Amino acid sequence: MSATMVPMNTYLNDLKNRLQEFADERDWDQFHAPKNLVMALSVEASELLEHFQWLSEEQSRKLSPEQQQLVAYEMADIFIYLMRLAGKLDVDILKAVEEKIVMNAAKYPADKVRGSSRKYTEYTDEAKTPQED
Amino acid sequence: MSATMVPMNTYLNDLKNRLQEFADERDWDQFHAPKNLVMALSVEASELLEHFQWLSEEQSRKLSPEQQQLVAYEMADIFIYLMRLAGKLDVDILKAVEEKIVMNAAKYPADKVRGSSRKYTEYTDEAKTPQED
Amino acid sequence: MSATMVPMNTYLNDLKNRLQEFADERDWDQFHAPKNLVMALSVEASELLEHFQWLSEEQSRKLSPEQQQLVAYEMADIFIYLMRLAGKLDVDILKAVEEKIVMNAAKYPADKVRGSSRKYTEYTDEAKTPQED
Amino acid sequence: MSATMVPMNTYLNDLKNRLQEFADERDWDQFHAPKNLVMALSVEASELLEHFQWLSEEQSRKLSPEQQQLVAYEMADIFIYLMRLAGKLDVDILKAVEEKIVMNAAKYPADKVRGSSRKYTEYTDEAKTPQED
Repeated sequence: MSATMVPMNTYLNDLKNRLQEFADERDWDQFHAPKNLVMALSVEASELLEHFQWLSEEQSRKLSPEQQQLVAYEMADIFIYLMRLAGKLDVDILKAVEEKIVMNAAKYPADKVRGSSRKYTEYTDEAKTPQED
Repeated sequence: MSATMVPMNTYLNDLKNRLQEFADERDWDQFHAPKNLVMALSVEASELLEHFQWLSEEQSRKLSPEQQQLVAYEMADIFIYLMRLAGKLDVDILKAVEEKIVMNAAKYPADKVRGSSRKYTEYTDEAKTPQED
Repeated sequence: MSATMVPMNTYLNDLKNRLQEFADERDWDQFHAPKNLVMALSVEASELLEHFQWLSEEQSRKLSPEQQQLVAYEMADIFIYLMRLAGKLDVDILKAVEEKIVMNAAKYPADKVRGSSRKYTEYTDEAKTPQED
Repeated sequence: MSATMVPMNTYLNDLKNRLQEFADERDWDQFHAPKNLVMALSVEASELLEHFQWLSEEQSRKLSPEQQQLVAYEMADIFIYLMRLAGKLDVDILKAVEEKIVMNAAKYPADKVRGSSRKYTEYTDEAKTPQED
């Protein structure tokens, strides 16, 4: 798809504009308060979740082609609402992503959290007061 | 940010690789079954929702700079988990996004849904059997 | 706890009244539009989800006493918001529960769905057009 | 409904037993790991959310009888999964509810939080270090 060969920022800005036009053509902008868009985004995340609720972890790693297509479209819905929200709130999502990756690397030093899924707060609390944990 | 000037697909593939390395360095890949990643994605969507639950729609359109920064980071978390999931499931998210936009345009013809937030199923049911609605 | 020895309906009505008083004393009723309460309820459901996202199914069956207490409190938060919402919307939750149980029994006949987690729509579609599934 | 005239605890224990039987008759117990049940509960909470995403706060206070019935059934689904989970985890939900209400009263003193929806952490941080907020 040639659209995806353009620079990332150009693509996302174009996508925001297309979503704004889509809403304008339908007079839907009135419904798209950020509050409402985050609700819709959360609902889409749950529709994705629903595909996985009765699957084992192992089954979730080996989706059938049909399941994978359905899951891909749910993921697309999330991406679309996320970019629609970014457009309405004037958020530079890639800037936030790159900053968050740096923050996460500092928050979860590899040699301290290796093999553990415990949250940052848990291991740091433990680090401070190991005897209390 | 120069990273975002690269072609979209290149950027996303690179991001998937960076997230895989991040998980490998921490031996976290074992926790990243798609089933678990969609749970984490849904949790992040709710953390975004939490910022808006007591705001009016009007307030949600005028976030303070501090609120906007917090919201941007929650959106980044969603983006990151979405790309991590796309990496694990080998999903081409932009292909799915572009297909979904075409599907949505067909599903919600502008002249039929203008100014209404009713769902597709509702207005089509009505279209078929207006007397029953 | 003696409160729980009273008839179910009496307990729930009393609970609704206590939650209304709690909100009134804090002048929080203004924030408790049903739209906002369902957002808060959904956020609480995700806080419950967060406790389980990195656990295996097996681990989720054997919570430590500490985990079980935390989970119990998250469940209580959901119960409280559900009853607060029922109070605001004047919903008789037990009536709806009993009706839904009858509906579910009709929707999922034991001899048709045994051992399968497929959704109602899937197996009925199959029932109609088994060759297409 | 006479069932709801029995003591609260008796009703809930009976409900847990009925839900266990419902699952056993369908051989669904194998799917009902707590991890999966919390996912299903979260999905139900989002189905409730979906009814409200495009409504204004004002509209959410004045549901039509049809909307209210649909909403009541979504709330029933949440109640049912919550009790199913309580059964599997052996959680005394009413005990947790009563304890949480006491905790909330201590956490949000009426004279300190009146008219404000700010979270506990925010106002206590402010209380400790007002100059930093």
